[in-house]
Amino acid sequence: MTQSSFDFDQAIALQTLDNLGNSGEGRYTGSTHGAWLNMVGPFGGITAAVMLQAVMQHPGRLGNPVSLTVNFCAGVAEGAFDIFARPARTNRSTQHWTIELTQAGVVVITATAVTAVRRATFSSVESHMPVVTAAAQLSRSEAPRLPWTQRYDMRALTGHLPAVWDGREGDTLSQMWVRDVQERQIDFASLTALADSFFPRVFLRRQTFVPIGTVSMTVYFHADADELSALGGDFILGQAEAQCFFNGFFDQSAQLWSKAGLLLATTHQVVYFKE
Amino acid sequence: MTQSSFDFDQAIALQTLDNLGNSGEGRYTGSTHGAWLNMVGPFGGITAAVMLQAVMQHPGRLGNPVSLTVNFCAGVAEGAFDIFARPARTNRSTQHWTIELTQAGVVVITATAVTAVRRATFSSVESHMPVVTAAAQLSRSEAPRLPWTQRYDMRALTGHLPAVWDGREGDTLSQMWVRDVQERQIDFASLTALADSFFPRVFLRRQTFVPIGTVSMTVYFHADADELSALGGDFILGQAEAQCFFNGFFDQSAQLWSKAGLLLATTHQVVYFKE
Repeated sequence: MTQSSFDFDQAIALQTLDNLGNSGEGRYTGSTHGAWLNMVGPFGGITAAVMLQAVMQHPGRLGNPVSLTVNFCAGVAEGAFDIFARPARTNRSTQHWTIELTQAGVVVITATAVTAVRRATFSSVESHMPVVTAAAQLSRSEAPRLPWTQRYDMRALTGHLPAVWDGREGDTLSQMWVRDVQERQIDFASLTALADSFFPRVFLRRQTFVPIGTVSMTVYFHADADELSALGGDFILGQAEAQCFFNGFFDQSAQLWSKAGLLLATTHQVVYFKE
Repeated sequence: MTQSSFDFDQAIALQTLDNLGNSGEGRYTGSTHGAWLNMVGPFGGITAAVMLQAVMQHPGRLGNPVSLTVNFCAGVAEGAFDIFARPARTNRSTQHWTIELTQAGVVVITATAVTAVRRATFSSVESHMPVVTAAAQLSRSEAPRLPWTQRYDMRALTGHLPAVWDGREGDTLSQMWVRDVQERQIDFASLTALADSFFPRVFLRRQTFVPIGTVSMTVYFHADADELSALGGDFILGQAEAQCFFNGFFDQSAQLWSKAGLLLATTHQVVYFKE
């Protein structure tokens, strides 16, 4: 296997141990990648992407992703991990997946996914892309010096990070253009990682730093492989907002549009925060 | 065990077969309930509630629900089912659950849930309840004569169902007051069912009937047991909207508020539709 020159491909690379078991379970091994680390352990988006990658790589896969839910049960430690991906149910045109990531035999991440063979039907974007300044007219925004943030060219329109962390309360809306710095072709795995590329809503709301960690994240895909292929490695527009903070957890709802206004994915997460 | 006089309690009643296995897996058996049927098989909301009930009933449960994702792999047949609920990971204050419902040994529903012991922190509703006419000033809306719709007192404000199914395209926003007709005390399980009580967005968008089926649904809970207890069996305000229809699947995002404007839950689902 030739190693891809893209950091993203290296980070989601999985070696197949076995996918011919009686249960149809695919067993894979992989390793965290230094270029995609966050403050502690890997960026959640790359972990979500690698969970989906186990499904994408499974020879029994039917169709492409429609839905993915990833539960972050504990911090992923730097180093090796195992992934188990099992088609829990295969129908005529849809398939339901159960996925687990373990380290040293202990469950660290659980996930479920739905893949489907799509057919052309009535289609319509209801959540329209906001009218914003083009990416080409903006320069790259400063981001906290963490490995994963350097993998993205983020061009913030609003709600990037507080200018001053003074505890003055703000709103939680963010809009940004974002692309892979290496302009790798967008696919389902990279769209999954992009769905987690927004900074924590609590930082914007409270303009102060508090420890956080995503506990569960869901991505709904509204594009198929052809629509993603057509994007190349271009900028997409991301928008994120919180709906509620309550006793230790807040949510985030987000949309990802192509430049042409296709809604590629909608995504939601619930995040632990301290205080 | 005395049988509850509430239809909802009867429908989510589970008999515990074993919850002392080595893996901590809880094994339960239950049965679909005639009062909660939909056009074919049970209402999805009652199925989602029974998946959560297996966690609520597990003696090893830590804290209350923060997040639930239910995947509808196939139609639930009328009659008996088995549920397996396993704490995949238990931390100091959070716990991650994997849940499966089978019929005749075949997987029909998969789910994951996060429970947590919450602590008082900064709390704030960001998605405010819209200003609408009070439930008391509205009369009960007509609903399609299906068993499950008779279990709810729905008082529509906008976007109930098309007045005329004439294929004239509409928007997808719905707002309604809704309560259990028996005014059963609201809890996490009933809030889960309410999260699925909106009619399919495609009916509103296209004002025509097409076969549909939810494939995956997520609920984020923004209230704890005390906040729910305080509600009794009163009306809550629900709002739902679609963001995208694309080649066989559409999404729905919804909010559920108390009369006092607490955001009790936010919920999302992706739904198969034909044509």
